[in-house]
Amino acid sequence: QTLELLKALTPEENIHCQHGIFFQDGQRKVDYVLTYHMKKPGGSRSGRQSMYMLTERAVARSLRRVPHMLSEHHRHQQAKRAKDSATLQAPAEVQTSFLGDAFNGHEDQKAFRREEFEGKLRDMGLELEKDEDANVSGVGFLKIHAPWNVLCREAEFMKLKLPTKKVYEVKKSRGVVEKISTLISKILEPLHPQFEELTWKLVCLSQLLYEEWANYSVFYKYQPIGLVRKYFGEKIGLYFAWLGLYTQMLIPASLVGIIVFLYGCATVNDDIPSMEICHPKTNITMCPQCDQVCSYWKLSTACGTARASHLFDNPATVFFSIFMALWAAMFMEHWKRRQMRLNYEWDLTGFEDEEVSEPKDHPRAEYEFRVMQKSMRKDRKSQHKEEKLTCQDRLPAYMTNIVMMLLMIGVTFAILFGVILYRISMKAALHMSSSPITRNNVQLTVKTTAAIINLVVILILDEVYGAFARWLTVLEAPKTEKSFEERLIFKTFILKFFNAFTPIIYIAFFRGRLVGRPGSYLYLSESYRMEECAHGGCLMELCIQLSITMLGKQLIQNNLFEIGVPKLKKLIRYIRSKQGAFQEEERQKKLQRYEIDHFLEPFGGLTPEYMEMIIQFGFVTLFVASFPLAPLFALLNNIIEIRLDAKKFVAELRRPVAARAQDIGIWYNILRGVAKVAVIINAFVISFTSDFIPRMVYQYMYSPDGSMHGFVNHTLSYFNTSHFQEGKETMDPLLLGYPVDICRYKDYREPPWSETPYEISKEFWTVLAVRLAFVIVFQNVVMLMNDIVDWLIPDIPKDTSLQIHKEKILLVDLFMKEEQCKTYMHQSTASPSDYDHCCRSKNSTAAHPRSRPNNPNIGS
Amino acid sequence: QTLELLKALTPEENIHCQHGIFFQDGQRKVDYVLTYHMKKPGGSRSGRQSMYMLTERAVARSLRRVPHMLSEHHRHQQAKRAKDSATLQAPAEVQTSFLGDAFNGHEDQKAFRREEFEGKLRDMGLELEKDEDANVSGVGFLKIHAPWNVLCREAEFMKLKLPTKKVYEVKKSRGVVEKISTLISKILEPLHPQFEELTWKLVCLSQLLYEEWANYSVFYKYQPIGLVRKYFGEKIGLYFAWLGLYTQMLIPASLVGIIVFLYGCATVNDDIPSMEICHPKTNITMCPQCDQVCSYWKLSTACGTARASHLFDNPATVFFSIFMALWAAMFMEHWKRRQMRLNYEWDLTGFEDEEVSEPKDHPRAEYEFRVMQKSMRKDRKSQHKEEKLTCQDRLPAYMTNIVMMLLMIGVTFAILFGVILYRISMKAALHMSSSPITRNNVQLTVKTTAAIINLVVILILDEVYGAFARWLTVLEAPKTEKSFEERLIFKTFILKFFNAFTPIIYIAFFRGRLVGRPGSYLYLSESYRMEECAHGGCLMELCIQLSITMLGKQLIQNNLFEIGVPKLKKLIRYIRSKQGAFQEEERQKKLQRYEIDHFLEPFGGLTPEYMEMIIQFGFVTLFVASFPLAPLFALLNNIIEIRLDAKKFVAELRRPVAARAQDIGIWYNILRGVAKVAVIINAFVISFTSDFIPRMVYQYMYSPDGSMHGFVNHTLSYFNTSHFQEGKETMDPLLLGYPVDICRYKDYREPPWSETPYEISKEFWTVLAVRLAFVIVFQNVVMLMNDIVDWLIPDIPKDTSLQIHKEKILLVDLFMKEEQCKTYMHQSTASPSDYDHCCRSKNSTAAHPRSRPNNPNIGS
Repeated sequence: QTLELLKALTPEENIHCQHGIFFQDGQRKVDYVLTYHMKKPGGSRSGRQSMYMLTERAVARSLRRVPHMLSEHHRHQQAKRAKDSATLQAPAEVQTSFLGDAFNGHEDQKAFRREEFEGKLRDMGLELEKDEDANVSGVGFLKIHAPWNVLCREAEFMKLKLPTKKVYEVKKSRGVVEKISTLISKILEPLHPQFEELTWKLVCLSQLLYEEWANYSVFYKYQPIGLVRKYFGEKIGLYFAWLGLYTQMLIPASLVGIIVFLYGCATVNDDIPSMEICHPKTNITMCPQCDQVCSYWKLSTACGTARASHLFDNPATVFFSIFMALWAAMFMEHWKRRQMRLNYEWDLTGFEDEEVSEPKDHPRAEYEFRVMQKSMRKDRKSQHKEEKLTCQDRLPAYMTNIVMMLLMIGVTFAILFGVILYRISMKAALHMSSSPITRNNVQLTVKTTAAIINLVVILILDEVYGAFARWLTVLEAPKTEKSFEERLIFKTFILKFFNAFTPIIYIAFFRGRLVGRPGSYLYLSESYRMEECAHGGCLMELCIQLSITMLGKQLIQNNLFEIGVPKLKKLIRYIRSKQGAFQEEERQKKLQRYEIDHFLEPFGGLTPEYMEMIIQFGFVTLFVASFPLAPLFALLNNIIEIRLDAKKFVAELRRPVAARAQDIGIWYNILRGVAKVAVIINAFVISFTSDFIPRMVYQYMYSPDGSMHGFVNHTLSYFNTSHFQEGKETMDPLLLGYPVDICRYKDYREPPWSETPYEISKEFWTVLAVRLAFVIVFQNVVMLMNDIVDWLIPDIPKDTSLQIHKEKILLVDLFMKEEQCKTYMHQSTASPSDYDHCCRSKNSTAAHPRSRPNNPNIGS
Repeated sequence: QTLELLKALTPEENIHCQHGIFFQDGQRKVDYVLTYHMKKPGGSRSGRQSMYMLTERAVARSLRRVPHMLSEHHRHQQAKRAKDSATLQAPAEVQTSFLGDAFNGHEDQKAFRREEFEGKLRDMGLELEKDEDANVSGVGFLKIHAPWNVLCREAEFMKLKLPTKKVYEVKKSRGVVEKISTLISKILEPLHPQFEELTWKLVCLSQLLYEEWANYSVFYKYQPIGLVRKYFGEKIGLYFAWLGLYTQMLIPASLVGIIVFLYGCATVNDDIPSMEICHPKTNITMCPQCDQVCSYWKLSTACGTARASHLFDNPATVFFSIFMALWAAMFMEHWKRRQMRLNYEWDLTGFEDEEVSEPKDHPRAEYEFRVMQKSMRKDRKSQHKEEKLTCQDRLPAYMTNIVMMLLMIGVTFAILFGVILYRISMKAALHMSSSPITRNNVQLTVKTTAAIINLVVILILDEVYGAFARWLTVLEAPKTEKSFEERLIFKTFILKFFNAFTPIIYIAFFRGRLVGRPGSYLYLSESYRMEECAHGGCLMELCIQLSITMLGKQLIQNNLFEIGVPKLKKLIRYIRSKQGAFQEEERQKKLQRYEIDHFLEPFGGLTPEYMEMIIQFGFVTLFVASFPLAPLFALLNNIIEIRLDAKKFVAELRRPVAARAQDIGIWYNILRGVAKVAVIINAFVISFTSDFIPRMVYQYMYSPDGSMHGFVNHTLSYFNTSHFQEGKETMDPLLLGYPVDICRYKDYREPPWSETPYEISKEFWTVLAVRLAFVIVFQNVVMLMNDIVDWLIPDIPKDTSLQIHKEKILLVDLFMKEEQCKTYMHQSTASPSDYDHCCRSKNSTAAHPRSRPNNPNIGS
């Protein structure tokens, strides 16, 4: 219903749009709305106590957020903040319940504290208007208007810059380059959202955002980041800018990924090893894959798997994983540049020290409460008041944290182990079944069900871990809001990362490593054999697991949770409202704008959105060597994701308090960490999971003619069936129709006729050495290339630095003139006309870039 | 002589100290002195044309440097800049000769341009005084005084902060911690230079620096960094702070190094392999080390080498190289913190954008000349003026650069190759000599002479490469002074790094790798066999080479060049002046302060000082696994180096123009790079150069009883002497007194009786795989630990961030009061007394931290 209401706000209904955004006098705009629960006459007392901020500092803090919109004024010189701020609802609900009984008391006391708070707000220069007899029962609204001088004062605090009148031009490059760039911009023109003209005409900015941004039909266009930032503040603006850049960067990655995949498809028939496996004349008898129940089998039955493996396991994947490592580095670099540019355009340069630390550096209320508790405890013993929590006080919480984190990771491992056991036992059970059709489907059934179980577990644990990380962080009681957020994010990331990637890491690096050999297979316990991979390496299985996890996570978490659930809710509401609908609708129409918005969901922070994307970034980079299509799937998901998030932010959540931010904070470090780990993991995937290195070693060290012919034979060791211990030999030795003396198995071991039969052979060590050497070379080469990329791409875009430079020159010029004039006035006995001359030149350059609230030029 | 003069400037001779530091009126201080060559009446015209800056911007640039000293004023409220600035001489000699004939013309023209320049200076508000009929013939002096208002204006540009009167206290920690820190500071008290009291009393700051800083006798004390910065500016201050921290950090490193070395000494008798080699019963006959001329030898003759090797090749070195990698990371982190603290204390926070880029971002005169040349060439063809050099214009220079750099590195390699050839041929020649005494000394003689030749070559090439890098950079014509400096440093670093480390890298990783085996030794050409290492690995040789290079470089470059040469010059001057000395001395006494200083050497920049230290840092970190005493030698050198540099800066160079700098610039990146490379190189040294991995492999994989017994035997392969090809067998088969059937050699090869005799054996591949695995583990573990160190140590020291925070709160309070007052005035009908009340509170908090030149509070 909110959607329809918002849709109804077309420009023609301007008058409707402005409904409820002014004070009763129709003059002063509502800049901010606070809500609180009132005791209904005769009703229950159990209302939430929102909006009680306790200290003077807290007031200052909330105020600090208000004047953010000032910059818009200065830029567009028109007061269209009104509508925007109407949707602005305060999620600043301070959980005061911890103060215990003393506060949970009477309504009177609440009212008293409310008044105290309001008084403080008035002291700060804000103007208030109450609306308690509103249409929404039990909820009181407090509308706040920030007058001009308050805004100016806060602007001064934030060191907002004013635009200068003197326009400096940044020269564009001439000649061919210009022509090309014109051409490119013409091609891209339809991709830019068409709002430049509209923006200044429309009164309802929200509305515009809804049409031009939060809509699936514009998926191919750039995002109107400027508008997003104006409406939601820099923090959310940066998130969407980041998401946009990430999605944009995924385009080349998916293109290259598709090409690599197509290369695999195209060369599948030229691949000599799989040709050799599939060739009917290659009549190799393989040893049984387990004791007793399994029997001998023909290598040619593995033909399909071998051919499929080639799709993902070919030399192009090596190139692709190097490409993706560089891609990740490029992405980080580009983001740094984009951030710098946005910082410049949004006037955030140099604000870091002053603002971001300001509201977040105050101790959290919970922390202060803990300190209070402690000092109350201590008071009986010593005299001086405690002022902070020492290491000793925190030790129990820290210990709990570490232990619980390890426990949680242990749970992840345990679940992985459970899934492995399921897989092993299912396989054994199905092996024993007599039906040949069942047997043929064994592989597929087991793999798929296991992957789906894994997926479900991951999805459930994701939610559990999220709640868990929050609980642990609350326990820790970090001092400031900022450190709370960072610690929470860090913990959540660690848990979710392990959750998502443990099964994949197991398949990539541990599965099939310690399987023993025919006749002495390794057992976990009595009847559970260690898993091994199908012929052609574990890469194929890794690929299946990866794609199921990634696609499933995206489909279920994004589409089901984020689209499906709201639609369902709406449907239910629609069915319900069929009965007494008309009356309700009538009342809805009478509601003020802020009263409608009150019913929207509060804004829960950006953490889940970022987290989802970072885990996806992990899928795209960490195991990209085994699944070149990952970037493509990520791209498809993100195109939907952007619009979905946009819709959610615009229409389904209360407008979040605009927060300034210069960067994406801890997320950048996590991204860097993931990118670093990706290099190592990809090196190991290529050298250990794929068959790349054994092939290379065979080709250049053992092959008689330098080709791949004979590779399959080379990788298979010999086993003499008479060497089976008692009770280990197969129960069905004649399954293939002939008796078997020598069978083959995939490993590098000495043949039965050597001095040390079935020992690990020289070839094994050779291949291992080459594998390790490859890891070293790969890792260091990629790190070096990353450093070079880092060094080649300047952090500040050239045009931005040029613009900053010009601005500075302008400032210096202006300043010099002013100074000269002053000196002149000081020293010489100048006539007033001289002074006029000076001042004229001064005025013509308009305001000093550092705004001064008492400067008359501001209003112009 | 200058030294004596400066020594003479004791406080009692205050009057002398102030001699020549005022204008003729005795009132205005000389802040800056420019010098130029005048045509002597009748003399030659070949004077240098110093001090002609051509553009208005250049004037502004030089002016921007002057008011640096303003901050002192504000801090100490007393004008004692006078003496300081007297020694301040301008090294700002712009090489104008490139402008060609047009400028090389007449003295008149020069005088005209000089006047133009002086006019511009006057326009900027500076006051000038000429002194052409000075005692130094042919040199004109132009004394400059910067009046108060000019200083104020420039201070505003630099956004210098004023101290506030309201003092905020940063609380110190209480309890045990405080007691400990008090104790520590008491212990360290004598280490702090005693100048706190003196500083404000003495007028001659230089003098103080000379006594308390540039003196060997205070080597154990901390440096008075604050004073250094005040006198020389932030850039040089940062250098000495960096050098001080580096030296300080070397103390724990050398302690641990000594412990590791002592551990090696203590355990030398417990080392089983060397015991086995030395044991008389271990009667192993070794194969000849070269064809024909060499004969069989007993392994026990290598006893000495094996025991010596143990000193440097024991498990403790593995620990030590991990320690040193972490040490490097800690050093970087500590430097970041120190830098932040200095930035705060020296008021440099946030100045980066505004100031440092200012004077350095202007195009260099050379660059502009090149652009001019180009546009003159183009003018004939097209109309529009060229404004910059394009890639195309630069291509030839870039190509030359790359080719020449490669060529230079090639020269390094060629010289290395030459030394290797020398070593091989000397060895062969000495081997052939019949005298047994000569033969015994072969090893030592050849190694030592080769290392010395290497050292001499390195020293010579160092100088050559320095000049070469400058020439290449000039050829490149970078646009700005900053990029010129960075490119020059980068090139010089690359060349000097290769120069210093190529021989060492050769010994560590290439020597003795491809030697072949007895009977088929590999030959470089007909008679030059590949070198091999002595028994016990190449680590011993690496150690010798490293210590000779490092010690030699330090002793010769620092002590001989930096101490010896000046002393020699002084001696020569003293002998010369014996004749007509008295008269000369008389004249000297009459000279003004600035005339004396004119004869000092100009300041050549910090690059050589940094470069020397970075190369030393390379020696300390890169190969520390092979030479644990490196930090100790570095420490000893640096203790001398600090005072030597200090002496040089204070007494032997003209006072450099004070330059602001927030960090040590490109050097930090180079340091980081060296630290990164060090991790990899150490990993390789431990796993490939030392015997650590083969020992571990033997102990855990092959040893029958888990001890090292039998290790020596395991590493030696067998050779059947009947397999010698014709012409390869030794000429003296009975040297040991008995015929030899089977001899041994150090390698992992199959024995003669295997199927594939003399092939590389399985053990070789096993050891290789373990070696590579060790490299991967070592590198990643150390990198992870570095990241953790990076993450654990906050970049901003806690006390500094606390102080900044308090300052901010102070500022906010002040501002709020001011604003409230204003609002109050605005809204209510307040009486003047109310306003007074407001203003009183405003004044009591003194000046606004951002200085305003027209603020009357500044002078107070």
